Formats: sequence, C-alpha cells, structure tokens
Amino acid sequence: MKLSPDPAALDAADPLARFREAFALPTGLIYLAGNSLGPLPLASAERVSRMVATEWGESLVRGWNTHDWFGAPARVGGKIAGLIGADPDEVLVADSTSANLYKLAVAALQARPDRKVVLSAPGDFPTDLYMLEGAIRTLGDGRRLELAEGEALEAAITNDVALLVLCQTHYRSGAVRDMAALTARAQAAGALVLWDLSHSTGVLAVDLNGCNADLAVGCGYKYLNGGPGAPGFLFVARRHQGALVSPLSGWFGHARPFAFEDGYDPAAGVARFACGTPPMLSLAALEGGVDLALEAGAGAVAAKARALGALFIDRVGDALTLECPADGARRGGHVAFHHPDAYAIVQCLISKGVIGDYREPGTMRFGLSPLPLSFSDVARAADLLVEVVRTRAYDDPSFRQRSKVT
Amino acid sequence: MKLSPDPAALDAADPLARFREAFALPTGLIYLAGNSLGPLPLASAERVSRMVATEWGESLVRGWNTHDWFGAPARVGGKIAGLIGADPDEVLVADSTSANLYKLAVAALQARPDRKVVLSAPGDFPTDLYMLEGAIRTLGDGRRLELAEGEALEAAITNDVALLVLCQTHYRSGAVRDMAALTARAQAAGALVLWDLSHSTGVLAVDLNGCNADLAVGCGYKYLNGGPGAPGFLFVARRHQGALVSPLSGWFGHARPFAFEDGYDPAAGVARFACGTPPMLSLAALEGGVDLALEAGAGAVAAKARALGALFIDRVGDALTLECPADGARRGGHVAFHHPDAYAIVQCLISKGVIGDYREPGTMRFGLSPLPLSFSDVARAADLLVEVVRTRAYDDPSFRQRSKVT
Repeated sequence: MKLSPDPAALDAADPLARFREAFALPTGLIYLAGNSLGPLPLASAERVSRMVATEWGESLVRGWNTHDWFGAPARVGGKIAGLIGADPDEVLVADSTSANLYKLAVAALQARPDRKVVLSAPGDFPTDLYMLEGAIRTLGDGRRLELAEGEALEAAITNDVALLVLCQTHYRSGAVRDMAALTARAQAAGALVLWDLSHSTGVLAVDLNGCNADLAVGCGYKYLNGGPGAPGFLFVARRHQGALVSPLSGWFGHARPFAFEDGYDPAAGVARFACGTPPMLSLAALEGGVDLALEAGAGAVAAKARALGALFIDRVGDALTLECPADGARRGGHVAFHHPDAYAIVQCLISKGVIGDYREPGTMRFGLSPLPLSFSDVARAADLLVEVVRTRAYDDPSFRQRSKVT
Repeated sequence: MKLSPDPAALDAADPLARFREAFALPTGLIYLAGNSLGPLPLASAERVSRMVATEWGESLVRGWNTHDWFGAPARVGGKIAGLIGADPDEVLVADSTSANLYKLAVAALQARPDRKVVLSAPGDFPTDLYMLEGAIRTLGDGRRLELAEGEALEAAITNDVALLVLCQTHYRSGAVRDMAALTARAQAAGALVLWDLSHSTGVLAVDLNGCNADLAVGCGYKYLNGGPGAPGFLFVARRHQGALVSPLSGWFGHARPFAFEDGYDPAAGVARFACGTPPMLSLAALEGGVDLALEAGAGAVAAKARALGALFIDRVGDALTLECPADGARRGGHVAFHHPDAYAIVQCLISKGVIGDYREPGTMRFGLSPLPLSFSDVARAADLLVEVVRTRAYDDPSFRQRSKVT
C-alpha cells in the first residue's frame, strides 16, 4: 500500500515556504483560483501606493523621466524573460494578452503572404480564436482559420500554414502541449508558431529559446500575480524582430516617440510592439508579482507546482473523475475534475472557504499557485472537496444559483 | 486703458474653486502640465487603495462579480459620455487611445470599402497618424493616407474619402477645429468622421451628438486626471453600433464572454469594442478623475478653462509670440507660445516651481486644468514667465540639457 505524503513534512522541506508571507490573503481562506486571478503580493500593494502617492502625486509628468516610467515595459518584460527562457531584449510588457496576440498574428501573417491557413485548436482559450478571426477579417486576403486537435492537428501542419497558434497549457484541462516538438514540426513546414503562455508563465519552467520559439504572448494576472487586468506581455525571437512590424503601430513603438514626426518609423527590437501609453498603475502591480517569481526561480516554482498537483490528485483519489493529466510532466498549474454537479460543488466549497472555479460544462478547476500556497492548504482543500462530494453537501438550491461571471 | 482682471477677485467668484482641494499637489508648485498628465485626485488615490487592498486583496477573483469590475468599462464610459455630449450607451473605456483609434478606423474603413482615402492633417497628434498607417497596412486593400490642412483639407473631402480623422483640439497649438462644420462637410461627401478628443475632454464643452458625430476616441490621463497611462475611451454613435465590428475582437467584446465558445459573436452596442481584460487599477484611478469632472459639470469647466487662458494671455501680453488662438472660442485647455529658447525657458520655470512643457521646435505649452488651478496660480505663473524672458534668467547651460522624454 502506497503511503500518501505528509503535507506538514512537505511544508517543512519546501524551499519556497517563506513566499506565503509575501501575499495578502484573507485569514481562513484557501485560495485556489490563482490561475484566474493571482492573489495580492504585499510588494505590489506597496509599489502601487508609491506609484500613486509619490510618483504620480509628487513627480507628476516628470515621472516619465525621474521614475523611468518610459522604461518600465522593457524592464518588466526583461524580468519576465527570466521566467520563460527568453533573453531580456525579447520580451515586452504591453496592452492586453488579446491585443498582443493580434499584433503578433498580423505581423506573422504579413511575413508569410503566400500561405492561407492560420492553424489553432478547437477549445483553445476563446479570446485567442476570436483575435485570430479579427486578424483574418482585417487582413481580408483570403486567409482562413482551421481548428484541429491531436493527430489531426499534426496532420494539418501543411505547407499552406502561415501560422500555428496554440496555448501551451490548456485553460480548462491543464494539459501541456509539447512546445519543442510542435514548434519544430511547424517550422519544418515553413510556418511560424505563436504560443500563448497565459496558463504557463509563473508555474511551468517555460523554455522558449530552448524550443527555438518564434513568438509568444502571456498574461500578467494569473500566476504572475499582477492584479486584475494587469498588462500582458509578448515575446519576439531576436531573429524575427527586424522583419516584423506591428499593425498597432503607436507612438510608444516609434523609433523617436517624442520627436512628434508625422510618419511611423518602428523602433529597433521588440519595443516596436508597444502601442499607446502603458497603464502605469497596473504595470507597477505586475512588477511586484514578477519580482517574487524571479526571486523564487522558475525551476523551483515549477517543481513545487508539480508536487502540489500530485498531492491534490493523490488525496482526491477516485472520488472524482480527473480531467487534467495525471502525469506531472504534462500538467500545468491547476488540476481539473469533472462532475455533473461541478458548479454546485464549487459554490459549496466557496461557502466553506475554499475558492476554486467552474468552467462550462461540468469542469471544476483548482489553481495551485506555488508561491502563496502551502502543501497543508492544498491537502485541506482536497480533503474538503472529497467530503463535500461524498456527503453531497453541495445538493442545496443555494449552490445552484448562477452569478454573472464565474 | 484696459484694466487686467484681478486674480483674487476671479478666485473669489469662481464656482469651481473648491475643487482645488480635491487634488494632491506638492506645496509651492504651480502645475501647468495637466494637458500632458493631470494631477492626482485624492479620490483616485482612495479608490486605487481600496481596489488593491479590499477588492483585489480580499475579494480576489470574486471581485468581478461583487465589485462589478466587469461593468466598469461601460460604467465609466457612461460617465464620460456626460462630459462629451454623448449618451451613456455610446461610450466605453478600453485599451489605449491609440488602440481605440485603430479599432474604430478599421471598422469604419471596412464599412466604406469602395473609398480609398483616409484623410487627416499633417502635424495632428502623431500616434493617430501612425495608427492610421497601421490600419491601412493591415487592411492592405489599396487605401492611402492623405494629409491636408486648412482650405486644402476642406478641398480634399471628396467622394473618395472613406474616413476623416482629426484631433478636435491640437496638442501643440491648442487650436480647436469646428467639429460641427467639418463633420457635416465630410458626411455630405459620404465619409465617416473620427474625432480624437484627447485634448478636449475635461476642458471643453464637447457636444458629439449635437454635431451628429460618428466616432470618437479620447484620453484618460490628461484633463480627466486619470493617472499615468489611464485607459482611453471610445464613442460610437448608436446608429453605427450594429454595423461596425472591431478588428480587435477579444472576449470582453463577445456577446457571451464566459460561455467560452470557439466562435466570435460581437456583443450588442458599444461593448463590442472591448478587447481583453481591462486594467482595473488604472481604471479605478480614472473613475476618480471622471467623477470630479462630472461633479463640476462640463459647462462650468469649459467656462473656467477659457477664463484661465484669457488671464494667462493677458498677463503675458507682448512679451512672447502667441502660438495658440487668442479667441477663447477657438482655443483648448492650454496656451502655447513660441520662442527660439523655449526649451531653456521651460526648464528655468521648472526650476522655479512652475511646470510647463516643451514641444519641438520652439513651442512652450502651459496646460490650464480648470479643477486643480486657481486664477492666482495662473497669474503668478504668467508673471514669472514674463520675468524669466525679460531678465533672460533661462540663459544658463543647465537649462539647455535635454532629458530623454519631455
């Protein structure tokens, strides 16, 4: 008989245990929705407060120089690079993940004018598919979006594919795609590849340059703990930076933004993918979260994330149908289970102080953010989930009432 | 002989005088760069603090429901509508001004497929021209950008113009275009018109629907005092909302964003022009600034702005070459003067506690934000400017050293 690991022993041996104190979390709450919105780093609260009271309030417009607001998108991008296997001059913080995906998709499609197919997967994160529709609709040059999964996806990587766009970690199932293999396969067919790292960054040891990646985007408010609507980021491999031009060619991506020239001249490097004035308050919060992840180290974060997932899955056992991969090497930062009453189960857990989330139809997700969570937190949550399912404590009309947003 | 008005008497009669206390401004500083970055409203500091500590920190992902983050872009947009002569369901806060201009320009051009010209003006705010270049480059359907000014601009409004894009208030000269006349003229030629209200909103009594405007965008961090990089806003006249589709068709503009469907279905109304997750911290700060402007009322704000400008121009007299219109009805919220040593003069004034700004070549601008400024502030600043010019106090090498961003 296999013995389950002891959570207290795992906590005692956890090199990242001290990071729990770096977050503001309500007492008594076990927060397992950091894959949707990461919790508040105390450093982010402090940075935002300073940004508002001192930088904006006292320096006013001089803050662009004296506090180097102007350099913040590249500075924070350079830090994120250290979490995703990129070089600092290949990553920029800008706009939203959706807008960044549009910018890179349009630039890539214009670099592959003779190929008609944009390839992605059905059920990938919806806004990615919507933005690709938008890019195709704007280009209006006969491109088409094809969606395929598994073997059919690999078979669809033909010489007519201009761009392959995939989420590395699936937002629902938590399954992780083989970035190296799919990138190589698509590049062999002459396509470019754009990875969405939203559910990977800050929880997996992403290795963009190790995979010879072309392009990527990612989210600031999930495992980077950057706050609600934190700006996204984008990656452009250095070899592509000179050839690609952003459709959203705004002044912050101009070679001389403050010369106020009439004509657009793209900045050198990844900076050309900046667009308008960046939201500095939200960017300040993001930097606080990114600094914590960097301090912990991408490798240690990924190892703990995998161990948290293994512990959760082990304790749930066969009480629920596992929807994420059991294999830690193929699983992202959250675990997912299927149940016909998943919505009510999640609501019941919330009423008992465990915050997970629900995705139609029938999926419950539990995000296991490695920095703010202990092994004991995760074990308690898993045990409560099993108890709620076993006792049918969720079987109450109040837990079936739907909120506007989940 | 004409007697100059007495600033103290103007302050005593100013119905908006009490708003000065609503801003955090460093003691002894006269801040005349609110046209570039508005000062900090105390209410914004308080809102951001609450957003961080309570809404994000305690409600966490539940904040989308419990604090209606999801409704914030439409709610704040609806408030801005009250400042620009629009209906609440015609305005949305989203992204940056640049990105919003791209969205509306592409949507408008796709609605006028047979017309080849996008018309704007040389020297209009550069990012607008850059974004139009980007829109044209993305569409790739043979459109071209034509730039013309004055009578040549009016003559260029032919039946081949798909879209006319203009700043209502010029960022450099402060000159205000005749929105009603130019809109009517372009519409008579079958074109759509897109107004950039960045230097108008919060300082002029803009009347979009009174001018039968089609489309507009504007900035949150100038006279709306929304903080560095505050999100922008966009206006789509109700009659156009059903026909225009955003190229940046992200999930926040989907009819059912949380159904996670593969296909894009635009939301009804102006909400379809949302894209990704909005930066909630920056949006919270913006709402604080917008609320102040609404409380003061667009008419009272515009009247005070005009009076502040008249006072400044009167006191400068013939000491400097006026670059903005002398006629208050044709002037925005800032005054502008030309001088070959304008850069050094602005730096010298900054060293003496008066913050203005400089634009190449030879323009000094002084933003006269009506809410945080008194008539006495403006009179003191104008008198100091005259003294600095008369005594050549600016004639020192330290005032000629250029900073990276101005």
